[in-house]
Amino acid sequence: MNEIISLLQKHRSIRKFTNEPVSSEQLDAILAAAQAASSSSNMQAYSVIHITDNGLKNQLAALAGNQAYVSECPLFLVWCADLHRYAQAVHRHGDTPVTGNAENFIVATVDAALAAQNAAIAAESLGLGVVYIGGLRNKPAEVSQLLGLPQLVYPVFGMCIGMPDQEPLLRPRLPREAVYHENRYTDNEGAVDVYDESIRDYMKVRSGGKVDTTWSKDMAAKAQRPREHMKPFLSSQGFEVE
Amino acid sequence: MNEIISLLQKHRSIRKFTNEPVSSEQLDAILAAAQAASSSSNMQAYSVIHITDNGLKNQLAALAGNQAYVSECPLFLVWCADLHRYAQAVHRHGDTPVTGNAENFIVATVDAALAAQNAAIAAESLGLGVVYIGGLRNKPAEVSQLLGLPQLVYPVFGMCIGMPDQEPLLRPRLPREAVYHENRYTDNEGAVDVYDESIRDYMKVRSGGKVDTTWSKDMAAKAQRPREHMKPFLSSQGFEVE
Repeated sequence: MNEIISLLQKHRSIRKFTNEPVSSEQLDAILAAAQAASSSSNMQAYSVIHITDNGLKNQLAALAGNQAYVSECPLFLVWCADLHRYAQAVHRHGDTPVTGNAENFIVATVDAALAAQNAAIAAESLGLGVVYIGGLRNKPAEVSQLLGLPQLVYPVFGMCIGMPDQEPLLRPRLPREAVYHENRYTDNEGAVDVYDESIRDYMKVRSGGKVDTTWSKDMAAKAQRPREHMKPFLSSQGFEVE
Repeated sequence: MNEIISLLQKHRSIRKFTNEPVSSEQLDAILAAAQAASSSSNMQAYSVIHITDNGLKNQLAALAGNQAYVSECPLFLVWCADLHRYAQAVHRHGDTPVTGNAENFIVATVDAALAAQNAAIAAESLGLGVVYIGGLRNKPAEVSQLLGLPQLVYPVFGMCIGMPDQEPLLRPRLPREAVYHENRYTDNEGAVDVYDESIRDYMKVRSGGKVDTTWSKDMAAKAQRPREHMKPFLSSQGFEVE
């Protein structure tokens, strides 16, 4: 429909990058786009940490489950939900910040996600590729300690950015009718049947015939790897979600 | 730097719309952009509900705190975090879905946010304006009942979309050094002092001299209006975040 919508629709995660650095002008544009994202009541309850130290990047790559692209990408950012700055602002006026409820936990998590997505799109518009690194939540306490995160800040995900050195297939998405509803939520399990087959086809092609799976099988497999440590980690970080 | 980055950087929320409808082609493009957003382990743990029924839209506007633009906007979407579909997929394989931990609560909330932000950018690229409606979290149980949300689905926010009938100022954001860090989190309260003054200036202009406030004052005022009901609401909706 236009160049921007076409860019959005062509997104695929990039996990292999050339050595070409991301310039400081590109980083400026990416950060300015991130900062312009919507924010609930203008709280801007997020922070972004740019990892310029290669040793630190290697440590984060190991904590994320030995993802080589975290070490190798030219630009690695860690997006954090941040109620620390908000709490400081409230304390200035002698008031008590609201840090222990689910509402502000949601606000901070969403603010980090909206800013990060703007950054991702800005990067892609510059011809760069990106991948989100949820693997930082494998070892969130270790990540937080390495980055010196104060109470009320937690790493939601990382993001690799760089010039793509691969041309991956687009991964098919759930049929629209699985995620889209009019006026009332309607179950559509038939759409999942259809999608199971598209993921089977996609994975066969992607793996050169080696992997035979479906979406629902992947979801069942994922259920065997819960990150049960997240709640105690969040509590220790001051997010006592009550 | 390019047209897309310039669009991202020019974002401002729109709360007044012309009567011009959003076409079905535009809606298609917006939804396709949303579906292409990144998703943790491809869970796609979100749903979007399009409110085409005007009576329902009016009820939602009232629940969101009588925000007239919710009633008046040509297109109103409710973005939900959704682990219901994932749970169904896991059950297909006789396994037990992980629904009661913080990790999957975060995944679903982030998935909804990333898809929604893609939708917002697609809409803005078409000349439309958008505003997020966090006010749906004022009365989340009532909203969930009206929309027939099953267990493991919650409304994260709404979104008004339509042709802008106002030209609001850009709201200044926190100075970069407040949200941006290199390698380690660094406190920068001086940036908040600077920002307090930019928000004072912005609000004076926006209110025609009537409002004298700062960012940190706004944050302190917001702390008087916690949404303490969110945790019990989420528990009742099956998100027993442990």
